[in-house]
Amino acid sequence: MIIVTRSGVTQEEVDHIRERVESFGLRTHVSQGEHRTVIGCVGDEERLQHVSLLSIPGVEAVHAVMKPYKLASREFAAEPTRIPLGGVDIGGKEVMVIAGPCSVEGKDMLLRTARAVRAEGARALRGGAFKPRTSPYSFRGLGEQGLEMLAQVRTETGLPIVTEVMDTRQVDLVASYADMLQIGARNMQNYNLLMEVGRLRRPILLKRGMSATVEDLLLAAEYVMSQGNPNVVLCERGIRTFGTATRNTFDLAAIPVLKQETHLPVLADPSHAGGRRDLVAPLAYAAIAAGADGLLVEVHPEPESATSDGDQSLDFDQFASLMKTLRPFVAAAGRTLAS
Amino acid sequence: MIIVTRSGVTQEEVDHIRERVESFGLRTHVSQGEHRTVIGCVGDEERLQHVSLLSIPGVEAVHAVMKPYKLASREFAAEPTRIPLGGVDIGGKEVMVIAGPCSVEGKDMLLRTARAVRAEGARALRGGAFKPRTSPYSFRGLGEQGLEMLAQVRTETGLPIVTEVMDTRQVDLVASYADMLQIGARNMQNYNLLMEVGRLRRPILLKRGMSATVEDLLLAAEYVMSQGNPNVVLCERGIRTFGTATRNTFDLAAIPVLKQETHLPVLADPSHAGGRRDLVAPLAYAAIAAGADGLLVEVHPEPESATSDGDQSLDFDQFASLMKTLRPFVAAAGRTLAS
Amino acid sequence: MIIVTRSGVTQEEVDHIRERVESFGLRTHVSQGEHRTVIGCVGDEERLQHVSLLSIPGVEAVHAVMKPYKLASREFAAEPTRIPLGGVDIGGKEVMVIAGPCSVEGKDMLLRTARAVRAEGARALRGGAFKPRTSPYSFRGLGEQGLEMLAQVRTETGLPIVTEVMDTRQVDLVASYADMLQIGARNMQNYNLLMEVGRLRRPILLKRGMSATVEDLLLAAEYVMSQGNPNVVLCERGIRTFGTATRNTFDLAAIPVLKQETHLPVLADPSHAGGRRDLVAPLAYAAIAAGADGLLVEVHPEPESATSDGDQSLDFDQFASLMKTLRPFVAAAGRTLAS
Amino acid sequence: MIIVTRSGVTQEEVDHIRERVESFGLRTHVSQGEHRTVIGCVGDEERLQHVSLLSIPGVEAVHAVMKPYKLASREFAAEPTRIPLGGVDIGGKEVMVIAGPCSVEGKDMLLRTARAVRAEGARALRGGAFKPRTSPYSFRGLGEQGLEMLAQVRTETGLPIVTEVMDTRQVDLVASYADMLQIGARNMQNYNLLMEVGRLRRPILLKRGMSATVEDLLLAAEYVMSQGNPNVVLCERGIRTFGTATRNTFDLAAIPVLKQETHLPVLADPSHAGGRRDLVAPLAYAAIAAGADGLLVEVHPEPESATSDGDQSLDFDQFASLMKTLRPFVAAAGRTLAS
Repeated sequence: MIIVTRSGVTQEEVDHIRERVESFGLRTHVSQGEHRTVIGCVGDEERLQHVSLLSIPGVEAVHAVMKPYKLASREFAAEPTRIPLGGVDIGGKEVMVIAGPCSVEGKDMLLRTARAVRAEGARALRGGAFKPRTSPYSFRGLGEQGLEMLAQVRTETGLPIVTEVMDTRQVDLVASYADMLQIGARNMQNYNLLMEVGRLRRPILLKRGMSATVEDLLLAAEYVMSQGNPNVVLCERGIRTFGTATRNTFDLAAIPVLKQETHLPVLADPSHAGGRRDLVAPLAYAAIAAGADGLLVEVHPEPESATSDGDQSLDFDQFASLMKTLRPFVAAAGRTLAS
Repeated sequence: MIIVTRSGVTQEEVDHIRERVESFGLRTHVSQGEHRTVIGCVGDEERLQHVSLLSIPGVEAVHAVMKPYKLASREFAAEPTRIPLGGVDIGGKEVMVIAGPCSVEGKDMLLRTARAVRAEGARALRGGAFKPRTSPYSFRGLGEQGLEMLAQVRTETGLPIVTEVMDTRQVDLVASYADMLQIGARNMQNYNLLMEVGRLRRPILLKRGMSATVEDLLLAAEYVMSQGNPNVVLCERGIRTFGTATRNTFDLAAIPVLKQETHLPVLADPSHAGGRRDLVAPLAYAAIAAGADGLLVEVHPEPESATSDGDQSLDFDQFASLMKTLRPFVAAAGRTLAS
Repeated sequence: MIIVTRSGVTQEEVDHIRERVESFGLRTHVSQGEHRTVIGCVGDEERLQHVSLLSIPGVEAVHAVMKPYKLASREFAAEPTRIPLGGVDIGGKEVMVIAGPCSVEGKDMLLRTARAVRAEGARALRGGAFKPRTSPYSFRGLGEQGLEMLAQVRTETGLPIVTEVMDTRQVDLVASYADMLQIGARNMQNYNLLMEVGRLRRPILLKRGMSATVEDLLLAAEYVMSQGNPNVVLCERGIRTFGTATRNTFDLAAIPVLKQETHLPVLADPSHAGGRRDLVAPLAYAAIAAGADGLLVEVHPEPESATSDGDQSLDFDQFASLMKTLRPFVAAAGRTLAS
Repeated sequence: MIIVTRSGVTQEEVDHIRERVESFGLRTHVSQGEHRTVIGCVGDEERLQHVSLLSIPGVEAVHAVMKPYKLASREFAAEPTRIPLGGVDIGGKEVMVIAGPCSVEGKDMLLRTARAVRAEGARALRGGAFKPRTSPYSFRGLGEQGLEMLAQVRTETGLPIVTEVMDTRQVDLVASYADMLQIGARNMQNYNLLMEVGRLRRPILLKRGMSATVEDLLLAAEYVMSQGNPNVVLCERGIRTFGTATRNTFDLAAIPVLKQETHLPVLADPSHAGGRRDLVAPLAYAAIAAGADGLLVEVHPEPESATSDGDQSLDFDQFASLMKTLRPFVAAAGRTLAS
């Protein structure tokens, strides 16, 4: 922690600041400038986290030296984390593609979609049984019945299933069906939910919140990991900005930034990021080019009739076309894709 | 719903769009422009909410005519809603001030704070027993022990207590202590939690999420209300923007906008909005001037030692000064404030 | 300047960083932490402004200690700056109200507006002769003819005139008519224009850019002041965020933040901030409550027919009502308003 | 234009709205809903652009049907525009790479850089002689002397030169040297400057402003084109959001959106977008993958000593490496790159 004092700070104030810091077991180094004094705090920064340093008279600014996350940081792990799912090591050389409908609407549509996406190289099936919807009057998913359909389709196709959990009370239920549990963007800072899935060992797909910084996302991962579950996969899905041309603003640069900051795998969700069917392909190509470890893609047998996210869902032909045109970009990135 | 077609739309496409809309029981009016055709959909817009109109060939844009919230809308209630708490009708003539520490840290500090804020005109006590913190390594509150302290202090001071609930599993527990349950900004779109507190009749303090639009906030209120609980108080507490001079950007204009859009009371939280002690007073004055029905203010016996939000907490003298200097603005707004 | 090194920095890297900094005449203080080394740079920070410190191997982060603006900073001036215009010292006790149409559309409408706003207490007349418009096909103002009308109306009413300058080539022309020159939000970082008006001594009304931080705004003021013109009045008029309920997001907290950071006066523009007629009054009350030194208000004889900004313009009755209801807030703020 | 009335609108109000619209020569179609009336306006929407429809009593919302730009729109041109520069048709099959230092600092460094980037496949040289800088105390470029150096280096290397113009008074001067004139992000809404370069026939590189929507950018292009200069190349360079991990937020999706909305070529600037040297390559790969027609890259012989933007400049080896690793992505996109 580095403390910058205000112009005209008194010696008494500097002494008081040092005493406060040292009372927590850290040492202080004072650097006297022409206008301001800088006080470096050496030792365990965590001990200062409860302290409102800005409340101490004479303090103008405080800069952290250490990153606030540890288990998720690059420095914690020598090697990138690889998380096996459906025969792919997510975070390894093969690009993981998870595809399926936004919502599970029925057994038949789910099975047809699973077969179609598997045929093109998807290695896991996504589908929502519990759906967070902005309006209480929208379709909110089939619930446990949807989970059962997912499990049946897994049996019939061999595809592992990825589905969202929204409520601490449903973690055990969802975990009893899902191969990977998704935490949605709106729940990225639902800390009790993060801790609850942290008690599992099942892989967690953690989607970035709409107003979450990269640091916020990594702190959310830290919540899960701090409870003992190291199997966290991050997902960039767009942030909220002033832009109106797309549903969200796809923060592509977050992908390489995350790859530097953390050892965890990073996926991209081009469907939610753009919110428009015609943008899924270019955003997917770009995500892979920027280093993403995989993609999350919404596919529906008949998007025009989808109960949710129809605007951004691909039909089977469009998904097949995406996978075909994606391959050269995967190769350019030195990665592979299932065929 | 108004559908705008793309330039060069064919008659077959227009016919197909109309068929789709009419299949849901609405009527269509076609208005043929020079370049684009506009199709007005008359009837119950809700029936179209599941339909991905943008997926229908030829559709370029869709504009909603109706607001997506109903129970929360001005049109639903002839009169502003008033919610009694601590002898004040929130939403009535008297300005409600809810004050107290960010976190309940102990019985003694809570009692001292309660007495101090009551003496200056606060009518309810706030204090967190369950705290959402960005880092898993930060203090997360005393839990049920904190709730008990709140209840004891209520007994000793007569102030009703306002405290946050973060987990669907804790709603009954928190409701057994609290007079008003707070939904924090990070949980504004935790829909299961909203529905759970919607089953209570206790007043709910719903804080705006950091990236929530006014419409998102009203839809969150609608979630609570749709479950049967009409006692929702909204709270503007700052949004996330590019600005760095303050912790959040206080969206002051949201106060008069909300007063127009909804019959629900609207409070402001100048402590979180600015994140700086020295900004609490000007933001509080401004909120009242703009029509807020009350304030949520963080007060701590010794902010320098607070376990959370010390930077933005007022000490007792500062709170007393705030309440004194606030009075002329309350009077200017044609309101009253307890003495 | 404070330099934080990356984890695992070598002694050679630290030595090289120090050499680079010291080669510019500053001294360095090294503070060795457990994981990172912090290098404080003492001396004239400005000398480092050309140096890409982040490019030096081993550097992870750089924190400035000094503010980048000087002439505009609080530390530069012991007293708040007061800028006389129309019999008011802007920045003094009296609240300055500048009112008038968005665009000068003709002599008659301008004169009628000037008389109407003067009668209610406005002390200066605003009106655009050169208008920045998002579309090249919109009305862009009457140009010099508009300036002449402004001058005539000044003669007839005694009100000083405030009008925008958009082009370095027009500075002399506009200055030959205007009592105060406005730099619009879109030109806040048109640095050549800032320098050109910096060569005048006429007061400059500098509007905050839509994506300008408080620091950016103060650096824009510094541009003007660094050329010799100390008469800069700042104006908060809303920033661009994800919000859609209002034209811009009124950053109310910027008003008290600016009052702390700078000795320059600060006005607010409630017309542009909200973009809606019905929000002008609550935003104006709030701005005064938060410490603004004055207001910029759009008034038009017949807003429904205005060539620009009709949605946010008040008619004469609405302006009269605003001035009347504003008075108690002005009094609450300990200020005065012309009658 | 589609006008939505407020709930409870009266017949008189509807009649008045229709009269107003029809007085401008448009026809109206009324569609009576259960709660609101929708009035479609058929005819030349431009005639309504001066009219404040929201000011008419009873109007709640107004939706545009037509795009506000024409010359820049896809509908205006059957084929993508190709703009020749340095032997490349920008917007054609070959990916254009424009590289060079942020600022021209001297003849020697410029020549060395030009030779280095040409050797790797860059087809034009960028370099600033007039530099917009946030602080008035930063280096602002060598001015005309810098232009002369650019011209000399063009003679010696054959590379066309791209350089910024900031002031209407300097357009002729800059145009007498430059092969392509750049309008910087801060001047994207400096409309007089846009009109001035619109009188040239030289290609214009128009960078997106930090808070400009896609529509704002296209309207800025429309300003240039409306004056007679059709040779506009757009450039995505990052927008301002709440994110802090990168200098700006690279709005990658704007690239395919622009390719749909306009026939003009679209470049990307990965140097400014990320603001970090290590992000230039992944952002460049992604831009090409998403369909960009070329790149603008900052290269400096010794970034550590650069007078501006050193943090984001590549050295010669890094640029060579970028061009080598970029090729597979160019091929994957079905494009070519000079060797």
